[in-house]
Amino acid sequence: MLSGRFAINVLVLLRRNPLLWLLAFVPLVFVGRAFEPEAHTLLFVLSVLAIVPLAALLSRATESVAVKTGDAFGGLLNATLGNLTELVIALTALRAGQIMLVKASIAGAIVTNSLFMLGGSFLLGGLKHHVQEFNVAAARLQAVQLFLATIVLLVPSALSAGESAETAAFTQTLSVYLGILLIVTYGLGLLFSLKTHRELFGSAAHAETEEAPWPLGAALATLAGVTVVVALVSEIFVESVQEAALTFGMSQAFVGFIVVALVGGAAEMASAFSGARKNRLDLSVGIALGSAVQIALFVAPVLVLASYAIAPSPMNLQFWPGAVVMMLIATLTASLVSNTGRAAWFTGVLVLAVYLIFAITLYLLPPSTQ
Amino acid sequence: MLSGRFAINVLVLLRRNPLLWLLAFVPLVFVGRAFEPEAHTLLFVLSVLAIVPLAALLSRATESVAVKTGDAFGGLLNATLGNLTELVIALTALRAGQIMLVKASIAGAIVTNSLFMLGGSFLLGGLKHHVQEFNVAAARLQAVQLFLATIVLLVPSALSAGESAETAAFTQTLSVYLGILLIVTYGLGLLFSLKTHRELFGSAAHAETEEAPWPLGAALATLAGVTVVVALVSEIFVESVQEAALTFGMSQAFVGFIVVALVGGAAEMASAFSGARKNRLDLSVGIALGSAVQIALFVAPVLVLASYAIAPSPMNLQFWPGAVVMMLIATLTASLVSNTGRAAWFTGVLVLAVYLIFAITLYLLPPSTQ
Amino acid sequence: MLSGRFAINVLVLLRRNPLLWLLAFVPLVFVGRAFEPEAHTLLFVLSVLAIVPLAALLSRATESVAVKTGDAFGGLLNATLGNLTELVIALTALRAGQIMLVKASIAGAIVTNSLFMLGGSFLLGGLKHHVQEFNVAAARLQAVQLFLATIVLLVPSALSAGESAETAAFTQTLSVYLGILLIVTYGLGLLFSLKTHRELFGSAAHAETEEAPWPLGAALATLAGVTVVVALVSEIFVESVQEAALTFGMSQAFVGFIVVALVGGAAEMASAFSGARKNRLDLSVGIALGSAVQIALFVAPVLVLASYAIAPSPMNLQFWPGAVVMMLIATLTASLVSNTGRAAWFTGVLVLAVYLIFAITLYLLPPSTQ
Repeated sequence: MLSGRFAINVLVLLRRNPLLWLLAFVPLVFVGRAFEPEAHTLLFVLSVLAIVPLAALLSRATESVAVKTGDAFGGLLNATLGNLTELVIALTALRAGQIMLVKASIAGAIVTNSLFMLGGSFLLGGLKHHVQEFNVAAARLQAVQLFLATIVLLVPSALSAGESAETAAFTQTLSVYLGILLIVTYGLGLLFSLKTHRELFGSAAHAETEEAPWPLGAALATLAGVTVVVALVSEIFVESVQEAALTFGMSQAFVGFIVVALVGGAAEMASAFSGARKNRLDLSVGIALGSAVQIALFVAPVLVLASYAIAPSPMNLQFWPGAVVMMLIATLTASLVSNTGRAAWFTGVLVLAVYLIFAITLYLLPPSTQ
Repeated sequence: MLSGRFAINVLVLLRRNPLLWLLAFVPLVFVGRAFEPEAHTLLFVLSVLAIVPLAALLSRATESVAVKTGDAFGGLLNATLGNLTELVIALTALRAGQIMLVKASIAGAIVTNSLFMLGGSFLLGGLKHHVQEFNVAAARLQAVQLFLATIVLLVPSALSAGESAETAAFTQTLSVYLGILLIVTYGLGLLFSLKTHRELFGSAAHAETEEAPWPLGAALATLAGVTVVVALVSEIFVESVQEAALTFGMSQAFVGFIVVALVGGAAEMASAFSGARKNRLDLSVGIALGSAVQIALFVAPVLVLASYAIAPSPMNLQFWPGAVVMMLIATLTASLVSNTGRAAWFTGVLVLAVYLIFAITLYLLPPSTQ
Repeated sequence: MLSGRFAINVLVLLRRNPLLWLLAFVPLVFVGRAFEPEAHTLLFVLSVLAIVPLAALLSRATESVAVKTGDAFGGLLNATLGNLTELVIALTALRAGQIMLVKASIAGAIVTNSLFMLGGSFLLGGLKHHVQEFNVAAARLQAVQLFLATIVLLVPSALSAGESAETAAFTQTLSVYLGILLIVTYGLGLLFSLKTHRELFGSAAHAETEEAPWPLGAALATLAGVTVVVALVSEIFVESVQEAALTFGMSQAFVGFIVVALVGGAAEMASAFSGARKNRLDLSVGIALGSAVQIALFVAPVLVLASYAIAPSPMNLQFWPGAVVMMLIATLTASLVSNTGRAAWFTGVLVLAVYLIFAITLYLLPPSTQ
């Protein structure tokens, strides 16, 4: 009977969440790879279409486990697995030695969350509601966290300009120390938001649970199973992305920055945009900024440390100067915009214009300057 | 009788607005050029003195047309023609192929509006009133717009560091896309401030109409006639500026950045400073930030697109790194200062000190580093 | 009897202020130098331990003179001599021609005050008090001042990228003009905070005077005498610092940036941290930001101008790019954090994490990139 109720639940979910119809592409990817292993462009498109609904499922399962296991541990889970899709894709790329793609996807996830998700929420919310107010105290705290987290992440890029072997060793050592510092900071941040000051973050934590949560067993099974499927699809994605980029005339930077970030974050974006339409901009701002903070403080250092175990060569935290500029602009923009506590549609247009010009630039970028 | 009332109006205007006595220099410029075409320094000084009152007349005529034609179209006019003098000077320089001067005047207008006009308003207002408060919501919205507009404008400079032919083509293509994006954004901004959210900008729009507006015919005639005269004087200005700069020991960057911006913006500065003295700092902040936004979102892209039609070679949006730094600092300063919602004289001193050090730097700059 | 009461006062002071026990190291430094002039590492450690309590004494004496001489002159004194220890150390290094050390100590003092003192106050205060509020109007005013002061200080570094002889002459001339501009601005700032708008700064000025002030004569004598002793100890410190840095494996940048700044500012830090524990965060923020402003607007230009009189070669205001980045990040962080008006322990952790990563970077920095 439990599985019967679960099946009904899945049907309800499919009806409410059109993204999930895309799940049909998951088997298609594997079929495609078995029969047409050289059709890179097709495999790329199929894998993108398959990852989006898987990410949505992961996010729903994480949430259900979080609700069932209670506040503190549930919050921890939500906070840690919120960017699980991005993490799995990046780990797959790391194993394949595609360090440029990994770095571009870290930078892109921060920029996409700060600009596209925030700007889109302001625009979509603003088209429906004249002026939207949001809790400026919580938004400022998160914006300051995002700004500081990005700064810390960018220190090696800002300070090690040279190209000598001495500088490379220095950057690598610094990246490891930094990774440890970031993870410790992230842990303290969880202590702060889940334990000592959880009342400040209250509204965002419980906001998404409108639908009945799944039973714990089903949710855990989904979490584990879908993670494995995402890992398998990511492998096809990472294999095909290079060739597909050539076909579409996209630069490598564009793929990592824009495509991976949009694909990996689709589920969160759907939540943020839907919150904005319901005039719950607190929720949208919380998802956008919180997710960007998590990339900077948790995903990035985990990838640096994991690179020692799984990558052909270790990864450092030195980013291409253009990516540094974009990350700084994105987080500074998010800080300034959040600081006002009010939004209207044109604020969204301006934030999206910054994102759009970044995307155009990356698309046009000649290969030599990346 | 209409023209009789208009003549009286002009007399009243002359008495109230001492700037207009400088109109006497307009015929002098043309006489000077006819008889002493090689007296560059003299022609430079005369043309500067002639442009200032012409700009004031343009601004007054625009305003009168705006009042007569009603809110929406009038607002559009005010917003589009507010920097008409700067635009005409820059178009003249563009036709003469002086692209460095055009770029310097764009950057200089943003910096001068953000720092000199804002700082001067704070200082002059603060010397008369102890602490001045201004509408922080409107100021923040405009400051965020200015910051984002500047960021968008600076993306090509920040991201195309190289000097190769490939990079040059990339920068040129990017500048055109960017120009289109900026103009579309500007159009949406007008829709926002004049139509969907005009109540947010209400106070600034109607603030300047203390004097009776001119009759529509006279205002339109003035607008058209004075624009032509400004264009003619600008030609003399652009011809003479190089030689005059050598005589005065000013670098080219100084002329574009400081002299053109101060000359072109003199009329707006007079309004902003007078508003501050009357303790209407909302008005001053609105003029300063609004005018800077307009340069970034409207004047700059119009010049890029126009360069394809009228300039010997197309213009891109890649600025000299020093100009990028100055624009970023200026708009960040304006954002931070506006964000407080209060001003006192020392805030003005600090903002002016930043402007002064920029001016000193540009004056001293050795030619090789420009 | 006066001297008797003074002696009792000193005893009370020693009991209340454990830092002062370190005064025992003052004679030890001189003994050490007389008998072991080549024991650089020992002399370095001894001189550091001796400067800390001397700085505390100087600060206490300045305060006593300020209280006795009344508001306006006292405020001037407090504001001017607040960083006397840093100034004396830097002047000693300047006379020894160690211009890199002087520049590093200026940059380090700004960064240490903005990040370590502010972050430490937030953390220590936040561990005791759940959420701390502070006067956001005063904090914003000081944060804007700090930001603008840093900007002005950094203009020569940002704009003179080249290395030619022409650029060097330009940077030197610009630094002198800038020095004069900064000192004039500082003077106007004193007029503002001590005379025209002193009610805005009221709470901070009188906050520290919990203990009875010393008699004027004793305070003046202490001020003069201790300044001389600090100068003598600084000489030993500056002589020994190079060798000691080698022994400890510290880069020269680390010594100037971190060690000198922490040593020179120890007394102020003690006051700021103690204010935060007593839930008087206004006081802590005021000390941290005010002291950083003073370094930028007063100490730095005094050193530039003094270098013409006492240094083997004049000093300019061009900083190493890494130092520029750190100063900008530090003051921007201080601005953003102060802007919220509320603090909790995790805000402190984030600010300290930025400081820590700077310190790690400077420690690891290979010599060639400094």
